Amino acid sequence: MPFQPDFAFLDQASAYFHELQDRICAGLEEVESDFARSPGSNTALDSAPGPASFHEDLWDHRHSSGIITGGGGRTRVIQNGALLEKGGVNVSDVLGTFPSDFAASMPGSSPHFRASGISLVIHPDHPLVPTVHANFRYIARLSAPESGASVESMWLGGGADLTPYYLFREDAVHFHSTYNEACKKHGDIVSYEKFKKHCDEYFYLKHRGESRGIGGIFYDYQQENPDRMLEFTREAGNSFLTSYVPIVRRRMKESYTDAQKEFQLWRRGRYVEFNLIYDRGTLFGLKTGGRIESILMSLPMHVMWKYDYTPPENSPEAELIEVLRNPVDWIA
Amino acid sequence: MPFQPDFAFLDQASAYFHELQDRICAGLEEVESDFARSPGSNTALDSAPGPASFHEDLWDHRHSSGIITGGGGRTRVIQNGALLEKGGVNVSDVLGTFPSDFAASMPGSSPHFRASGISLVIHPDHPLVPTVHANFRYIARLSAPESGASVESMWLGGGADLTPYYLFREDAVHFHSTYNEACKKHGDIVSYEKFKKHCDEYFYLKHRGESRGIGGIFYDYQQENPDRMLEFTREAGNSFLTSYVPIVRRRMKESYTDAQKEFQLWRRGRYVEFNLIYDRGTLFGLKTGGRIESILMSLPMHVMWKYDYTPPENSPEAELIEVLRNPVDWIA
Repeated sequence: MPFQPDFAFLDQASAYFHELQDRICAGLEEVESDFARSPGSNTALDSAPGPASFHEDLWDHRHSSGIITGGGGRTRVIQNGALLEKGGVNVSDVLGTFPSDFAASMPGSSPHFRASGISLVIHPDHPLVPTVHANFRYIARLSAPESGASVESMWLGGGADLTPYYLFREDAVHFHSTYNEACKKHGDIVSYEKFKKHCDEYFYLKHRGESRGIGGIFYDYQQENPDRMLEFTREAGNSFLTSYVPIVRRRMKESYTDAQKEFQLWRRGRYVEFNLIYDRGTLFGLKTGGRIESILMSLPMHVMWKYDYTPPENSPEAELIEVLRNPVDWIA
Repeated sequence: MPFQPDFAFLDQASAYFHELQDRICAGLEEVESDFARSPGSNTALDSAPGPASFHEDLWDHRHSSGIITGGGGRTRVIQNGALLEKGGVNVSDVLGTFPSDFAASMPGSSPHFRASGISLVIHPDHPLVPTVHANFRYIARLSAPESGASVESMWLGGGADLTPYYLFREDAVHFHSTYNEACKKHGDIVSYEKFKKHCDEYFYLKHRGESRGIGGIFYDYQQENPDRMLEFTREAGNSFLTSYVPIVRRRMKESYTDAQKEFQLWRRGRYVEFNLIYDRGTLFGLKTGGRIESILMSLPMHVMWKYDYTPPENSPEAELIEVLRNPVDWIA
């Protein structure tokens, strides 16, 4: 008989997201602190900002309007760090009632749901250190809008993707390999190739004909084997620091030019375009009365749009854009 | 018998938009040049950039994909000016074929259309000088997708709205009064009160509970009396420089603080949010294969998002936000 998730299983998944938030914030604060103590050559030691740490805001359903009727979240944001210019690592665990159009698009019949997850975006100040995004979550249809209700159906989703401003092949390979390994350990239920492709397709700016970054993995609406999918989700979540921190440490001491910094600000504009025009989670959150500042923590601090810029041919900047237009198989 | 627009009438409207572009660009370059010669106290004369002028890009339908099959446009962009950090004044005049869902939402039966208009957004560097947007345009359904085809129906639309970062009552009154006067001259067919209300309703960020700026006028889908509506549209278009330039000249020599500049960058984030999440013209253009760089010239150059910022109570910054939450009747 297939595994039937119950409310206690949802509690267990949600507890994992909270625990992962603690570990990820601690891991990122450690890098931030190491960098602040010994910044790269672009930062004079005597003018370097001290290390920043995550600021926590607890919110509950009364801070949102609309479809959320219970539960809440723990938003953690870091800003103006020596290395981490802006980032957020948020968890939430809410009860709510689907709007009717949304309810119809998902399997099951009850409008009541519980949703929980972790969502993070990190925008380093240093243009050679990539931006990263990851999230892991579930949505479950409940028989009733209350704690302990029975679970009609549930689906898990998540993923992690990297958005470099300058492309280092070894970084891309490291990031993708980490998630390839995670997928391989659960190879009977998940496929890196499939999730990598899904990631490339999802994080795509149609109007630009460009991917947002160099991808990673993305999976969604996984309904079968929730117990096994939660194990995989833990594997992927636990891989996050391993996938990202070595890249950060490898690049953060390198020096960069003003032109590279400017290119980063310009590329960040594409990140904003994707999140505000296409990202389902962002738009769903904004339109259903989610907590705006928790949702929009994903936007970088400083961003630039200039008119009709094209990088010179054969420059590193042009190479990046070439890869964004034609996704690469990094672990071939 | 009511006036029946023909292709020559469309030519005439389009010629007006082109002529207005010339006048507006010249008017803005004059202010830019005056400022560069004698900048405010925030700009050291010896480090002031020289005056910028508009850069012109001509494009034709082959630069767009999708629904546009003929015609083209004249994009004019100014960047990195002493006063005008970024701005665009664009005209276009295109032939095309509506996608079927869009066609169904508009009166008439032919899928062929001609659309022409002028669209402008100006983002000054100086935080006491407001951002401004205006556009005037028509869409006409044609019997055939070619020059000289007969006109089945047409509608005119347009408007102008002001987005200050710091609120000066006399500026708001001047801007609104200018368009109130323009409306009064055509009072038998248009109403300032109605258009002002429409503007407040349209330029509204639902997720923030805030208007984008302090409004102005906005009208759309005006099908009756196209001859008279074009006269009114000329009146409103001709009012643009009168509505905006005196405000620019009044504020551009005032000194400002770093904190005021930072507040401007932060408020610009809201401008981006509106344009990418709500603006019909932007989203329609992006999704139907318009020329991306002409459409997104509306975005400011430098923008900032910081997490959960709220200005101190009773500050000028808080006063602005109060007015954005509760639109004011400026000419009462």
